[in-house]
Amino acid sequence: MPQPAFTLTFLGTGTSIGVPVIGCGCPVCTSGDPVNERLRCSLHVTAPDERSWIVDTGPDLRIQCLREGIVTLDAVLYTHEHTDHIMGFDDLRRFTVPADAELPIYANAGCLARIETSFHYAFNGENRYVGYLKPRPHIVTGPFSIGCTTVTPLAVEHGKVSTLGYRFDHPEAGSFAYLPDVKAIPDATRDQMRGLDVLILDALQEQPHPTHLSIDEALEVAADLAARETWLTHFSCRMDYRRVAPRLPAGVGLARDRQRIRIGG
Amino acid sequence: MPQPAFTLTFLGTGTSIGVPVIGCGCPVCTSGDPVNERLRCSLHVTAPDERSWIVDTGPDLRIQCLREGIVTLDAVLYTHEHTDHIMGFDDLRRFTVPADAELPIYANAGCLARIETSFHYAFNGENRYVGYLKPRPHIVTGPFSIGCTTVTPLAVEHGKVSTLGYRFDHPEAGSFAYLPDVKAIPDATRDQMRGLDVLILDALQEQPHPTHLSIDEALEVAADLAARETWLTHFSCRMDYRRVAPRLPAGVGLARDRQRIRIGG
Repeated sequence: MPQPAFTLTFLGTGTSIGVPVIGCGCPVCTSGDPVNERLRCSLHVTAPDERSWIVDTGPDLRIQCLREGIVTLDAVLYTHEHTDHIMGFDDLRRFTVPADAELPIYANAGCLARIETSFHYAFNGENRYVGYLKPRPHIVTGPFSIGCTTVTPLAVEHGKVSTLGYRFDHPEAGSFAYLPDVKAIPDATRDQMRGLDVLILDALQEQPHPTHLSIDEALEVAADLAARETWLTHFSCRMDYRRVAPRLPAGVGLARDRQRIRIGG
Repeated sequence: MPQPAFTLTFLGTGTSIGVPVIGCGCPVCTSGDPVNERLRCSLHVTAPDERSWIVDTGPDLRIQCLREGIVTLDAVLYTHEHTDHIMGFDDLRRFTVPADAELPIYANAGCLARIETSFHYAFNGENRYVGYLKPRPHIVTGPFSIGCTTVTPLAVEHGKVSTLGYRFDHPEAGSFAYLPDVKAIPDATRDQMRGLDVLILDALQEQPHPTHLSIDEALEVAADLAARETWLTHFSCRMDYRRVAPRLPAGVGLARDRQRIRIGG
């Protein structure tokens, strides 16, 4: 018997405009170096009980699913309503192909409202037939379960938009948290983030930014929370992997698109 | 002096779910053959006076611009409001980088309404700063000009959604029409489509479909309109390029992603 483990795949580690950026002549965007190629931020998770889910569905969702061979999903979670996290929503239709299949969707009220406004036809009850997207929406107000995994929403500050991270706990595999878009983590939320095996955290770039953690700010959070491993994500084109990755402290790494992490096992 | 010419690039020739389709085991989707790889339908045009525009911005817009090296645009035109034609809208922000830059957007009223509903922040006047999308919307009600090119909207039938094709005429380079989503073309619209150098037309698959032309139906339209060349586009995964392309009559071809066509010159 294999030991119970989570398998995490970074589907994308980029900001809202990805890397390379259209029309940008900076050294990272023009490097052609695959370690600096970043689709819009998203995470795929397979749990020990074979349940699987995605956190956020940006416009690159189709390509991300194709290149990782993702053909089934048990749930989709959303951190917040920004375009780069939701606008691939319709491509989830391939995960509700049978006429009676529904896909559970978890989001806060504001995010769900924008999804419902933008993709009205998926929610108005008219398109229940084979091959069309049939979401079963849930407004996240507290912890919930996906199979044997307990999911705890983590309220964070990210500009004006109400935003969540998520903590995932499995009784045998361990725990991780995913916070791709965050500027500040309130104390009450930090209290929910102790004892993690893996922390995955926004770290946009070295330069400060009004709505995202910089590298230094993220390293402060990482030191405070003291997860066994911390992986940084959601990078702009100011983040040159080759230059920054070697300078990080022990236990902290820069995530790359398509990278896999195993927790437990 | 080079002779005046239009250069057309097929940015994508696929349906709403692209080809390969997530989770599909059909021979085309599993072939790995690049001629059957199709991003969501979109066309890029460069006119003889160096003006350039895109027709439709599906979720693949960023990748399409990167792989074709598109770094400037003078306008964006929309055929209709379906998800696969509009949901890459936000990635147009890279074409309005200076703080005072605006990008003209042409669409019918229903399409513009869905874009404005889905991307409210681009239209509410709050995000006029550097790097954010600053569209200048125009509701299409009749012919208009982009530089020296006259653009004529072509009303067509495509299910329940009000849909346009477009005819483009340049006094020296010639003329073409682009109708990626159409089930039927009314006589009044056909009268606007005579004497074309190039006709680009929806031809979803060999099998009949309620809202798209089949290959046989498209060939009937092509024979009636008698453009100098006809190119078919907007293909499902039932369309195997290798099998279907050799069977087409003279003067008709299947478009491929990234294919270029020159008109005039």
